[in-house]
Amino acid sequence: MSDTREHIRLYVEAPLAAGGEVALSREQTHYLRNVMRQNAGDSIGLFNGSDGEWRAIIRTLSKQSCTLEPQAQIQPQRQNPDLWLLCAPVKRARMELIAEKATELGVREIHPVLTTYTSAPRVNVDRLTAITIEAAEQCGLVSVPRVHPPEKLQTVLDNWPTQRRILFCDESGSAGPALTELQNLKSKPDSQTAPWAVLVGPEGGFSPDERAMLRAKPQSLAVSLGPRILRADTAAIASLGLWQSVFGDWTR
Amino acid sequence: MSDTREHIRLYVEAPLAAGGEVALSREQTHYLRNVMRQNAGDSIGLFNGSDGEWRAIIRTLSKQSCTLEPQAQIQPQRQNPDLWLLCAPVKRARMELIAEKATELGVREIHPVLTTYTSAPRVNVDRLTAITIEAAEQCGLVSVPRVHPPEKLQTVLDNWPTQRRILFCDESGSAGPALTELQNLKSKPDSQTAPWAVLVGPEGGFSPDERAMLRAKPQSLAVSLGPRILRADTAAIASLGLWQSVFGDWTR
Repeated sequence: MSDTREHIRLYVEAPLAAGGEVALSREQTHYLRNVMRQNAGDSIGLFNGSDGEWRAIIRTLSKQSCTLEPQAQIQPQRQNPDLWLLCAPVKRARMELIAEKATELGVREIHPVLTTYTSAPRVNVDRLTAITIEAAEQCGLVSVPRVHPPEKLQTVLDNWPTQRRILFCDESGSAGPALTELQNLKSKPDSQTAPWAVLVGPEGGFSPDERAMLRAKPQSLAVSLGPRILRADTAAIASLGLWQSVFGDWTR
Repeated sequence: MSDTREHIRLYVEAPLAAGGEVALSREQTHYLRNVMRQNAGDSIGLFNGSDGEWRAIIRTLSKQSCTLEPQAQIQPQRQNPDLWLLCAPVKRARMELIAEKATELGVREIHPVLTTYTSAPRVNVDRLTAITIEAAEQCGLVSVPRVHPPEKLQTVLDNWPTQRRILFCDESGSAGPALTELQNLKSKPDSQTAPWAVLVGPEGGFSPDERAMLRAKPQSLAVSLGPRILRADTAAIASLGLWQSVFGDWTR
């Protein structure tokens, strides 16, 4: 970590620029005042997903409200690679883990997709959003993935953007190794700049119809993640790491 | 999943062979009888880490004890690649997650290593062992990694086997990309059969002395996992997936 990084970092929606004024929510005010014991005159880090991270000084701090003044940019804005995560909702704790890890692994958007074998279809978008924000705050990140409401996989695929490729984690055992398939595709012309999505199924895998539909999509690259059955969260984390290593910003 | 896979799977220490008799622990007996509502005559899957998975029929089942008879091997024994995970202990929930994921990702041994910045040095080896067994039971695996008691990193490195390479996840930003470094090494003679370990530090990273010591070890390959700071659990999962993709059994 850089020496200039602030220990306390908060995500805000307001624009950040020198001399501006930023108001915190009641929850953030409570956290800063009662949990972190900060006072007027102390400084923390603020980021909003588009202006980088700013060192901001606390100007006013009461029980209910807090205002800060951004003073200097201490981290430039970095945009994540154009990678989405599509995943079938799984049980609450594992879904929250997926949201946290997708944030650390630099995903731009999280799309819960309802599949035939999805057994835990309820998704709390607000809760998952709070988890992505907390992960970004704690890991020194300046980008927070957007969490979308759940949609049927069929609907998502029917409206799929022509250019965006899909890394389809196919647990059936009939696909080639993920790394080999990704690198083969990378060696082809025009393949290095395409936007991507990683698709991970529910614990029961994809139905035969879904698999056939995915295999038929020209944007889809079916891959295997080894001979052992992986839980959905493990498959999501490992495949995002592989993608970042071949096409994303882990290549630098 | 194969049609012959049993829904209920239990890890036992006894040898498994046709016509033998296997006794369950009291906890397993309770689980089978009261949680899963099984009866004498029902069959489940048994594995012990060396004889594959066997379909076994429940011969006797009382409140305190249960005996089973293995009838047919339904999955051959598969040995994990010779990969260890060395990780600094982190907070309980994240350490348990690491043990679960290391199991799914096919690690042979888990070695908690105490480093300078380790902030949660207590490790419950029995609890972590139970988690690896549960993960293997639930994911249809036949191998369970062995969890070792914690040791000082210095001690582990002083006694390090000459042949075993170390994938050193160096968060300092000065190492090359993990995938590139692994593939460069793989292209060298004799590098494809060496045993390996992945090494992941605590939340605060490695100390300058530790980093220097690791960089000086000829077996060590320092790598970067991208521009974002990863939590220890994320780094462990992603780096194990990368290793399996380059050197392990995800290559098939």
